[in-house]
Amino acid sequence: MEVWKGDRIKLKTIHFAIIGHGFVGHVHKEALLRSKWAKVTGISDRSPEMLEDVEAGIKKYKNNEELFSDPEVDVVIIAANNNQHHDLVIQAARAGKHIICEKPVAMNTAELEEMEAVIKECGVKFTVHQQRRWDKDYRIIKSVYNKKLLGDIYMMKSSLYGYNGNMHDWHVFASEGGGMLYDWGVHLIDQVLYMMPEAKVKSVYADMRNVINKEVDDYFKILLKFDNGIMAEIELGTYFLSDKIEENWYERHWIISGNQGTAYTDGFEPKGKIVRTSHLLTNVSLDKPLGAAGPTRSFGSPSEGTILTEELPDAGEINQDEYFYENFRKAYCGEEPFLVTIPEVKRVLKLMEAVWESARTGTMQHFE
Amino acid sequence: MEVWKGDRIKLKTIHFAIIGHGFVGHVHKEALLRSKWAKVTGISDRSPEMLEDVEAGIKKYKNNEELFSDPEVDVVIIAANNNQHHDLVIQAARAGKHIICEKPVAMNTAELEEMEAVIKECGVKFTVHQQRRWDKDYRIIKSVYNKKLLGDIYMMKSSLYGYNGNMHDWHVFASEGGGMLYDWGVHLIDQVLYMMPEAKVKSVYADMRNVINKEVDDYFKILLKFDNGIMAEIELGTYFLSDKIEENWYERHWIISGNQGTAYTDGFEPKGKIVRTSHLLTNVSLDKPLGAAGPTRSFGSPSEGTILTEELPDAGEINQDEYFYENFRKAYCGEEPFLVTIPEVKRVLKLMEAVWESARTGTMQHFE
Repeated sequence: MEVWKGDRIKLKTIHFAIIGHGFVGHVHKEALLRSKWAKVTGISDRSPEMLEDVEAGIKKYKNNEELFSDPEVDVVIIAANNNQHHDLVIQAARAGKHIICEKPVAMNTAELEEMEAVIKECGVKFTVHQQRRWDKDYRIIKSVYNKKLLGDIYMMKSSLYGYNGNMHDWHVFASEGGGMLYDWGVHLIDQVLYMMPEAKVKSVYADMRNVINKEVDDYFKILLKFDNGIMAEIELGTYFLSDKIEENWYERHWIISGNQGTAYTDGFEPKGKIVRTSHLLTNVSLDKPLGAAGPTRSFGSPSEGTILTEELPDAGEINQDEYFYENFRKAYCGEEPFLVTIPEVKRVLKLMEAVWESARTGTMQHFE
Repeated sequence: MEVWKGDRIKLKTIHFAIIGHGFVGHVHKEALLRSKWAKVTGISDRSPEMLEDVEAGIKKYKNNEELFSDPEVDVVIIAANNNQHHDLVIQAARAGKHIICEKPVAMNTAELEEMEAVIKECGVKFTVHQQRRWDKDYRIIKSVYNKKLLGDIYMMKSSLYGYNGNMHDWHVFASEGGGMLYDWGVHLIDQVLYMMPEAKVKSVYADMRNVINKEVDDYFKILLKFDNGIMAEIELGTYFLSDKIEENWYERHWIISGNQGTAYTDGFEPKGKIVRTSHLLTNVSLDKPLGAAGPTRSFGSPSEGTILTEELPDAGEINQDEYFYENFRKAYCGEEPFLVTIPEVKRVLKLMEAVWESARTGTMQHFE
């Protein structure tokens, strides 16, 4: 089926079915309902009560078999629990449906490789909703990196802190693919890898904890040593507290530092600066008065004018979902490649496996 | 020689000579000049111009031989460059002098073991000026730890940031024992070990950089995994910038987090809190509005009343130098043990060697 938008651009209507009408299933549905070229044909959920708020005009499938056998459906969006992705992707591919799979694409690389084989065999299109590549904080820091604004970078830290302790829905259950590495770690790792796609990860060292949760990780610190000399740290804690609420503590933070300055952002609606110094101190005089720091001349408050700031690059405004689906539409129509590819998500998943192994054994893992 | 303070406490006058009249040599001299039981007999320095400001009544030795052979001298304070500690300690011990050595006690454990053998052979008293065990920020956090105020602790981070880039005096030269691991790392490691003296360090993973300096390290991140389950991180950067000057960014920071809260301090004159939550969220409702964070229910600003704060323990006021020298006097007189012992500084030095090895090879080092 085809629709015409204005008189110049021919848009094909693509028909979507969604598996899983939970939190993220709603996000997909609403993004598609806003678009001019998509139709949400139907939705399934293994819990019938989750379909109660499905809008008129959208089918409520009794089960996934009914969804897969619906000839109207072009694309299946898999927004079920993480542990169901493998089977559902394979079933969708065998039904000849194109696929958008939620992140994490699979529970492990072995699952993904089975999925990949069937996807190739069936010749269906496939991508993963790894949409935090278009978060504003990330795009700003990536721009700092790409424009080489800090000289030789030696470290970057991506962090995310929360106060909740426990998690939502099925994310508290290990068997469903719960825990924060699957939920957010997959994004945080993807962002760092996607910032420096040319760089190899030499090693992985990680600490993971169940601080509040019984079954699943709710704190992790991951150190990734890249062959470009950068040490990237990712830290997430759902129970890592502060009263610095006005500084967006309970949100996203980046810090990236080189020999010509440091850049940072705080918050999902990021505030931050590039920070430099007016000069480097080559020596410090002996008679500098001692403050509360006791005998040190290397630390303490800088004198006025020493610290200079610049604005961060303007990364513009991008709606994650519109951006993702605009690429999806074009890639679906063969006009450009998918922005998120199987080799990319496989690398992230392999890295997550190295993180688990490092945390489990307490040892550094060589990677690439 | 003996002096009487009041009519009850008999104080013995101890005669000190100082080798090295640089920054720290001055610190020792001034602490002793304030005391009622010490006499600064004389000072040597290999650069004669460094003795120009020596006070009247204090001998200016022509060389260390003259100092060592001065029968008036009971104790030699070694405040020379780090690479001279080994030879000077051995010479002082052979001259029958008791010794206070500046930190780091030696360039490596091999040096320290040679020093230790001579110290024992000569039967002289020996301690190391590891005085940051009595820094206020550290004593507060140690008190939080000792009082078990945070439940099961999973992480602690000790950090120190600066804007100077370059370092002072001979600290820019590798041959003199320069660099920030020798200068400050030795304190930061000692503090963490001294906080949990019963715990073994299972492994060490470290990154070290010369960001601004040609020869010596001016950035390091060290992860110490303890057998009590705590991962301790130490991060120092002399060129790690921020414009958050009002938050004491360019000073000391601690953060220590457990399953019943987090404590932090900022600054050498530390400000901080214990932070807890009014409750744990066991689930998050589906219809929570999405903010700038996009689709997440685990992160974002807490609602009012969720974050609770308590005051940090009062660690009181301690003058580092008075505290150090009061113990020195008592230990010298046999009334109590030295607060800083050879096994302790040897453990710190071994750990520093593991840090260098980890950073050099890019691999985790097993430790204890």
